[in-house]
Amino acid sequence: MVKKYSFGKVFDTEAVVKKVRAEKEAVPYFTQQSNDEEETITFTCQMGKEDKVYGLGEQIRGINKRGHIYVNECADDPVHSEEKRSLYGAHNFILVDGTERFLVFFDTPQKVTFDIGYTDLDVLAVTTGKDVDLYVVTGKKLLDIIKEFRKLIGRSYIAPRWALGYQQSRWSYKSADEIRQVVRGHRDNHIPLDTVYMDIDYMDAYKDFTINEEAFPKFPEFVKEMKKEHVRLIPIIDAGVKIEKGYDIYEEGVEQNYFCKDEEGRDFVGAVWPGKVHFPDFLNPDARKWFGSKYKYLLDQGIEGFWNDMNEPAIFYSEKGLEEAIEFVGTFKGKNVGIWEFFAIKDKVLGIANSPADYQSFYHNTKEGKIRHDKLHNLYGYNMTRAASEAFEELEPDKRILMFSRASYIGMHRSGGIWQGDNMSWWSHLLLTIKMLPSLNMCGFVYTGSDLGGFGADATEDLVMRWTQFSLFTPLMRNHAALGTREQEPYQFKNMEDFKNIIDIRYGLLSYIYSEYMKAVLNNDMYAKPLSFVYEEDPHASQVEDQLMLGDEIMIAPVYTQNATGRYVYLPENMMAVKMRSLTEYDCKVLEKGHHYVDVASNELIFFVRENRIIPMTTGGEFTEQLDFTNLKILGYVTKKAKYSLYTDDGVSKDYDNPENYVEIKVDKTGKAVVSSPKIQVNSCEILN
Amino acid sequence: MVKKYSFGKVFDTEAVVKKVRAEKEAVPYFTQQSNDEEETITFTCQMGKEDKVYGLGEQIRGINKRGHIYVNECADDPVHSEEKRSLYGAHNFILVDGTERFLVFFDTPQKVTFDIGYTDLDVLAVTTGKDVDLYVVTGKKLLDIIKEFRKLIGRSYIAPRWALGYQQSRWSYKSADEIRQVVRGHRDNHIPLDTVYMDIDYMDAYKDFTINEEAFPKFPEFVKEMKKEHVRLIPIIDAGVKIEKGYDIYEEGVEQNYFCKDEEGRDFVGAVWPGKVHFPDFLNPDARKWFGSKYKYLLDQGIEGFWNDMNEPAIFYSEKGLEEAIEFVGTFKGKNVGIWEFFAIKDKVLGIANSPADYQSFYHNTKEGKIRHDKLHNLYGYNMTRAASEAFEELEPDKRILMFSRASYIGMHRSGGIWQGDNMSWWSHLLLTIKMLPSLNMCGFVYTGSDLGGFGADATEDLVMRWTQFSLFTPLMRNHAALGTREQEPYQFKNMEDFKNIIDIRYGLLSYIYSEYMKAVLNNDMYAKPLSFVYEEDPHASQVEDQLMLGDEIMIAPVYTQNATGRYVYLPENMMAVKMRSLTEYDCKVLEKGHHYVDVASNELIFFVRENRIIPMTTGGEFTEQLDFTNLKILGYVTKKAKYSLYTDDGVSKDYDNPENYVEIKVDKTGKAVVSSPKIQVNSCEILN
Repeated sequence: MVKKYSFGKVFDTEAVVKKVRAEKEAVPYFTQQSNDEEETITFTCQMGKEDKVYGLGEQIRGINKRGHIYVNECADDPVHSEEKRSLYGAHNFILVDGTERFLVFFDTPQKVTFDIGYTDLDVLAVTTGKDVDLYVVTGKKLLDIIKEFRKLIGRSYIAPRWALGYQQSRWSYKSADEIRQVVRGHRDNHIPLDTVYMDIDYMDAYKDFTINEEAFPKFPEFVKEMKKEHVRLIPIIDAGVKIEKGYDIYEEGVEQNYFCKDEEGRDFVGAVWPGKVHFPDFLNPDARKWFGSKYKYLLDQGIEGFWNDMNEPAIFYSEKGLEEAIEFVGTFKGKNVGIWEFFAIKDKVLGIANSPADYQSFYHNTKEGKIRHDKLHNLYGYNMTRAASEAFEELEPDKRILMFSRASYIGMHRSGGIWQGDNMSWWSHLLLTIKMLPSLNMCGFVYTGSDLGGFGADATEDLVMRWTQFSLFTPLMRNHAALGTREQEPYQFKNMEDFKNIIDIRYGLLSYIYSEYMKAVLNNDMYAKPLSFVYEEDPHASQVEDQLMLGDEIMIAPVYTQNATGRYVYLPENMMAVKMRSLTEYDCKVLEKGHHYVDVASNELIFFVRENRIIPMTTGGEFTEQLDFTNLKILGYVTKKAKYSLYTDDGVSKDYDNPENYVEIKVDKTGKAVVSSPKIQVNSCEILN
Repeated sequence: MVKKYSFGKVFDTEAVVKKVRAEKEAVPYFTQQSNDEEETITFTCQMGKEDKVYGLGEQIRGINKRGHIYVNECADDPVHSEEKRSLYGAHNFILVDGTERFLVFFDTPQKVTFDIGYTDLDVLAVTTGKDVDLYVVTGKKLLDIIKEFRKLIGRSYIAPRWALGYQQSRWSYKSADEIRQVVRGHRDNHIPLDTVYMDIDYMDAYKDFTINEEAFPKFPEFVKEMKKEHVRLIPIIDAGVKIEKGYDIYEEGVEQNYFCKDEEGRDFVGAVWPGKVHFPDFLNPDARKWFGSKYKYLLDQGIEGFWNDMNEPAIFYSEKGLEEAIEFVGTFKGKNVGIWEFFAIKDKVLGIANSPADYQSFYHNTKEGKIRHDKLHNLYGYNMTRAASEAFEELEPDKRILMFSRASYIGMHRSGGIWQGDNMSWWSHLLLTIKMLPSLNMCGFVYTGSDLGGFGADATEDLVMRWTQFSLFTPLMRNHAALGTREQEPYQFKNMEDFKNIIDIRYGLLSYIYSEYMKAVLNNDMYAKPLSFVYEEDPHASQVEDQLMLGDEIMIAPVYTQNATGRYVYLPENMMAVKMRSLTEYDCKVLEKGHHYVDVASNELIFFVRENRIIPMTTGGEFTEQLDFTNLKILGYVTKKAKYSLYTDDGVSKDYDNPENYVEIKVDKTGKAVVSSPKIQVNSCEILN
């Protein structure tokens, strides 16, 4: 059940797709208090010692969010260390699992602070602006509540199937030749590959919707050439539009008043990669439509996917902020600088980027009138991505276009996925991404994944290998690394063959992974779930934060510790451990419910199949289009009988809801398989009893 | 066996106390290569897949150091995130445990880089300056090698017993009244306490060896007042000496040429907390003696312990560096600043602190002549602490003075302990400190521990509680936090009683902890050992990096995960699990060799007693002097018989080597205890069979 409670008059974020009438009575579970001076409300709730608090989507720390204070305010901060409070997204919901079970979504475009047992171990306190809509969702099971919430916020974006292939990226492959080399690195070594990303350097002077013709001559031909290699190119689009006379996007935006304005009504000037830019006013429906239409430039050249970046928006500096800082530093010239003055200089210069003062100094021309940016900050990236997706509906109505974003808000999940931001090549970030995945699924971000191997800092071969083993299970599986860091494409490493073998397994499992991805989206389900969502009665399940349930069939337990040759695993029921060294070389073994230490060599992938469950596998391939999704092999653990509902379609069109996309496969304990449709063949069936 | 191999002519670091003649033949295990341009040598060695590499003392990452690149160059960097390569100490030794077992100590005051399977998973490459002495230590068992190495570098510093009590610190308690409040916070709530730290604000304008008379009036009386409360005050001493006319230390240092000089022979000017300072030339024996003598000012006022800080040395800025940066920023005034110019501004300002250019711009007047700082950098903190300890030998020849330092080099372990630097209130840092402890013990730093609860960033109650449970076992047990962070004294928290109970246990175990601490120092042994050092034949032991063996009797397995109510533990043999809620409320249970999941509630301490081992406990107290070390209780797991060699002395004098300090306690399986000396009584004996 969903109930709505309104405070003040909140800007319509369009996060919710269902009309819900606001209740008259008081909000349940919480007491609230107005903080008049700050113009905020604090909602407070006592937690039981054993209560778990899930939610917050893209945030740091655990699956159970207790023990920290989180500030949902989209932030471009690439160092996600434990004390941080804000990442790129603002997903303002929590799911309390205690004597009472309820989800609350705080729908407001302003900053929201969640103090979840930080100030007081047993108190949950949420502080929002004075204008906010609360949606309280209740239900019996945790997953029921999530499904109800997902219905409220609408169906998630659906990626093309090829976007579930292995993807390679780096900031930046700076020329067509460099990309050709990357493709060769994969193809020559038979490492599967479906896409290569084009980071900011493909553009002419970092101008959106341009191509650096020198580095990428005859771009449409290059796109075609890559497609012949079965590789799609995925260019980045940044939020800021370069100020440059004669640059059409700039000229049009100025002319039509499609850019954010400063206090005096001039186009606001910030600086990001292109140097000085204006920011498109994505909160203005006309500007949104205009910017969206610009993706056509690349679609027309054969591009089928994009990633939207820098859309918190990141502001390296504003003219005013930088001038003030230069001025401030200048006053110390020739003077005897004291230690606290020195710190002031440092703070001033460090404070130039993404400064609150800048966010308070420009305005949007919204459907509800002129509103200062900081009042709507969390909607900016959301609406940039919405601009694109709305345009795709018009420009390519029958085709799925790959789209994901860095910044986001709930509601944007209908327009695109997200990647988990600019992480680091840290082992702790491998664990962080494992924990973040189910939280993102809860609020509709199903097409997601982390920069495999880590974006910032230098990766090591073993880290990239272990991360590949985990990312193999995430819908977005992309290896990405930052400028100046060690090259981490799979073919850069000594044990390249191991990388090939592990990525091969992704393609073998893609019939299952794609099916589960699609079903999660179409049924408002979670693709990856915490154990406690599946085994609600198991008292230990909620303690497990480094294993995830995938679909209804498997459990993953990635190795995320350096030099580890195994790990502890908790089995909430008997399961079949599958240990794979390649798509053809693997062992299966039934393990009993309980705690186990399992050996997992560095070149081994481990996962677990539940009792009376089967998974469909392909025989592999080097790109998704090479995969035969109709001739399958079954792997299973069947003591009585098992059935699997296979979702299958062409992977590119939008005929999602056709009942013919579902095929039922039944297997008995002798391994005999029965398939509900002649379009799918089961060629072998490997089961343990 | 120890063999020495010399390259070039290295500055005598005095790290080693034994004369070893240099071998003529080639270094074993390694091939070496001169890099003429960089004036460095790289020593390379192939590692087997299963080889473990231990060592490096204070460094980040695992007990097994494989998989990272480490740069030993004492650094003041408070953010110890995974990609970092340098911390505060330079402990240039590794212990390779493969088909061959050997330890190598690279004795050189310059930077040393250890690439341990970073560039190539299976290659160990160590790069040093061209002047270096290698000491290669071999032996049968890992612990034999460590003992041999420890004999080579000399006996570790010995702290007074009261320094093993619970210690409370914060940057800063700014007045005597604030310290009185801290003491009351403990005493009123019966939370044990032995010392309170005085961070930089106790000084007059951050001048070493001064007291802020306004905040701390009649200091000697205050010291006495605190001693009546059985609390010792521990002031900080910083490396930099404030430039201030009339300040005696400054005047004397200038007059005697005891400060480091710049290229032109003027006293080098850097800036740290006092603003502009000169740096005492601790590499000049006369200056060292002079600076050491200054501790008398505080000893005379009743002070019995110190901590030396900022002695890498940290340099916030040099006059030249800051001027250059201000100048550089000024050139952009009024200009159209491009994005890369903006980054250059940021880098310039961020690069002011601890800049390599500054370290290359001043000189020491050493026993071997004038040498540029960067050539001796890693010896600076070492010799500051040596200055103090040499002075203590003269000023207080019969008394142990507490002394520990931030920066260090091997050799300094004879003069003082170290704390593990300015860590953060991160759960991952709790784990890091567990891993760092045995590595520090290997190279003689036995009196050590981390800032309990974390120094930087805000702590939560559960983090401080879990950290207290671990630090309870480290010789240095100090709660410390930075300016601006959340107050984290035990009495600040809701479940204060739990903190009291856990700290009580420290005092109950202190008869054992002190005995093991002293024996480790006196026998060149490790207080805390990795499991693989004790169970060499156990193939799983080296995988365990989150449990430690303490002494010969116990194994600890701290909980270091937020919201966890238990953890996995590996038992290499049958052990007795002891789960304590307080000194009097606890359960003991024998667990079998193998893997276990153990429940450990947030207010519970768990540790494990080995088979046929006993530990002596006191009945507790609120400060060490209240403890009765003569009337003991025995806790043990005895299936046949057990004996314990108890070290006991007065805790303050230096009569360490008196054989009468050792008392043997024997217990049979019925619980009957026999003690070798009448000075110790065993009042109760609680054993499981």
